[in-house]
Formats: sequence, structure tokens, C-alpha cells
Amino acid sequence: MEEKEISQAVIGRLPRYLRYLGELKDEGIERISSQELSELMKVTASQIRQDFNNFGGFGQQGYGYNVEYLYHEIGRILGLDRRHNFIIIGAGNLGRALGNYINFERRGFIFKGMFDTNPQLAGREVRGVRIMPMEELEQFLQDNDIDIAVLTIPKTGAVEVAGRLVKNGVRAIWNFAHVDLNVPEGVQVENVHLSDSLMKLSYNTSRYMKENERDSETA
Amino acid sequence: MEEKEISQAVIGRLPRYLRYLGELKDEGIERISSQELSELMKVTASQIRQDFNNFGGFGQQGYGYNVEYLYHEIGRILGLDRRHNFIIIGAGNLGRALGNYINFERRGFIFKGMFDTNPQLAGREVRGVRIMPMEELEQFLQDNDIDIAVLTIPKTGAVEVAGRLVKNGVRAIWNFAHVDLNVPEGVQVENVHLSDSLMKLSYNTSRYMKENERDSETA
Repeated sequence: MEEKEISQAVIGRLPRYLRYLGELKDEGIERISSQELSELMKVTASQIRQDFNNFGGFGQQGYGYNVEYLYHEIGRILGLDRRHNFIIIGAGNLGRALGNYINFERRGFIFKGMFDTNPQLAGREVRGVRIMPMEELEQFLQDNDIDIAVLTIPKTGAVEVAGRLVKNGVRAIWNFAHVDLNVPEGVQVENVHLSDSLMKLSYNTSRYMKENERDSETA
Repeated sequence: MEEKEISQAVIGRLPRYLRYLGELKDEGIERISSQELSELMKVTASQIRQDFNNFGGFGQQGYGYNVEYLYHEIGRILGLDRRHNFIIIGAGNLGRALGNYINFERRGFIFKGMFDTNPQLAGREVRGVRIMPMEELEQFLQDNDIDIAVLTIPKTGAVEVAGRLVKNGVRAIWNFAHVDLNVPEGVQVENVHLSDSLMKLSYNTSRYMKENERDSETA
């Protein structure tokens, strides 16, 4: 079946649906109406129906959705029915944190290799995966079927490393480096700019404080 | 000056402007037109002007923007002219990674304390900051002026801990726990759901692969 182009906003909401459906499934709940799901997730039922209509609707209104079916369909749409091998570039704190995160494995994301510029780290292991020097990157990519590279390095080296990854067939980069990567079409980049997220929090907090100061002045 | 309500989409783009302006400033560039900024950042000039108009426009078109002024104004809007003290709940890999991230300090985010349920960690330090047992949380919050709590704990404990934080005056939570927190109005939550981000990458990669398979079938 031809799937139409889905907006990134809709895609961005799918993992949250999956999370709630997984919890419902674990609780043994078999069916749920869009109204119930709406109350649980605190989004409108109309939003849920619109989102699901992008994928053909997933079942009949009135009868509600089949939780198990919906969970598996959304997982399939997200590509979780495939295995994704990934490597991590950068064996610092964040890289090691992500390497140690076993939940990724449960979702089919398999940690295959780790690279670092620091030669002193070469040969050490993170969750049974060997840290290799950057010089071995190309050979490793040729010998292994790697879908995703996680970049947890400072921004200075990130653009060059991304180039090497793409040149050797990596088609998806999960980028924690604080820089925008320009990659060719067909290569997917998902940015996690932690500072940006923290600043957004800072804005909202500061704004709230300013409003309160203003309110108390005018009160 | 009364500032009108700004959409979260606009706020979410401000840190990226700040990053590019910081780099321009470091390169000694004093003025930049919205057209030049547009090419650099790969967004339309009209988007830039619309975003900036939310804050009064930041200077005259034709003459371009004063980089230094724009950088400082955006920083001020984001609340970076204030100090924000933060604590981290959860001294695992991710918590330690965030505690060790010195760039936050340069932006005015000051790491003040770390808590963990594991009593064996109590007394150890991360970047000079002592890890404390969870029992000391309330007293610590009463004795210190903490704006932001970073939650890097499993989802099981997160809702309860968030409640304790809010009850003791924390007004901003940077939530890495894989659960939605329901907090009272006036408390800001910024979620970083890493799995969700990885799944979005998985979707886009899988979709691209499927399209290519289809293309080669029909070719």
C-alpha cells in the first residue's frame, strides 16, 4: 500500500502513542476509545483521530481501537519491526550513557561499536562493546551493517566525522553535537541539542517569573 | 514593556539563532542581513523576520542586524541574564554526563546538588558536587535557591519525585524520565524523551528504505 507523505509533527507524536499503548497493553487492556485515550494522554480526541487517519484510521470508531493491534501497527510504522544496528562516536559520559541504555535494545536498536579519538580508551569496553580508535571507522563500516551512528562528540569534529559516516554508507545520524550537520538527501539526521532544550526551559521559567513580578506590582 | 504571548515554536527556534549569532560574534562579524542569516541557517528570511517581529524586530531592515545586540537580546529573552541553580536527581550515566557538562555553567546554569536513591553513592562527587541520598532532598531545597531540577531516573519513581520537587518550590523540571509528568500550573516541564527521538530517526530511515525498495521494483 502506498503511504502518503506524513508530516514530521505527526511522526513526532507516534512514539508517545506507542508508549501509552504499551502501558495499556501491559495492564491487560484490550480496547480503548479515542475519547479514553484522549483523556489519558491529554490531547483532543479529534487530534488522535486526525493523526491515525494518516495511516488509514486503525479501526472503527464506536468500537474503539484494539490496543494490541494499534501498538504493533504504530511500531511497524516507526520501523521497529526491523533491527537497526548502531555505533556511537564519542566515548565520553553521554556516549557511555547511551551505550549502557538497554531499553534501546528492546526496541531493536543494537549497539555494535564505539569509537573515540582518545587512543587511551581503545580496547576498553562499554556493555561488552569494544571502543575503537577513529582510524578503524571506515573498515568497521565496510565490514558491518550499520544503520545509525550516534554522534556524542564536541561540535568541532562533528561535521568532518559526519562526512566520513555518510561516505561509508551510514544513512541515519542521531546528532548530539551542538552543530547543524549538512548531509546529502537520503541521509536522516535527528538532532538532540540539549542546551537548546535547557534554554527553552529557562525562557519559560524566566517568563513566568517576570509575569509574577508584574502581577505583584500591579496588584 | 508588555511582551505578548509567544508561541513555543518560536521559542524553540531562539536557541538556534543564539548559537549562530554567537559564532558570528566570535568571528568578529558586526552586522548581518536577514538574507545572509537565512542562507547561513537554511531558513527563509521571511521566517527570520517573522520570528524577530515577535520581539519588536531587533533593528532595521536594509542596514541588517547588529550581531552583538541581537545576541544579547535573544540571550536576555531566553533568561540567560539570570543565574539558574539546578540539581540532578539520578546519578547514573546520563545524570553524571549532564553534571559534567561545563557548557551549561557558561550559560548561567549552575550545578548545585545531585541526589540518588542508591545509598552507596552518597558522599561521592560529580565535578565537585556531592551526591546526596534522596532523604535529604527536602532539606536541601529549603536551604538552597534551586530553580531547575533535572530528572534522570527511571520512569517508575519520576512522578513521585516530581511531586516532592514541586511541593518544595522547584518551578522547572528538565525531564529525561520516560513518562509524562502532570504538574500544577506555573511549573514548567521540558521533556527530553531520548527513545522518542531515536524512533523518529528509525521512522525516517525505514521510510526512506521502503521508498527505495519500491523505486527499484518499479524501475
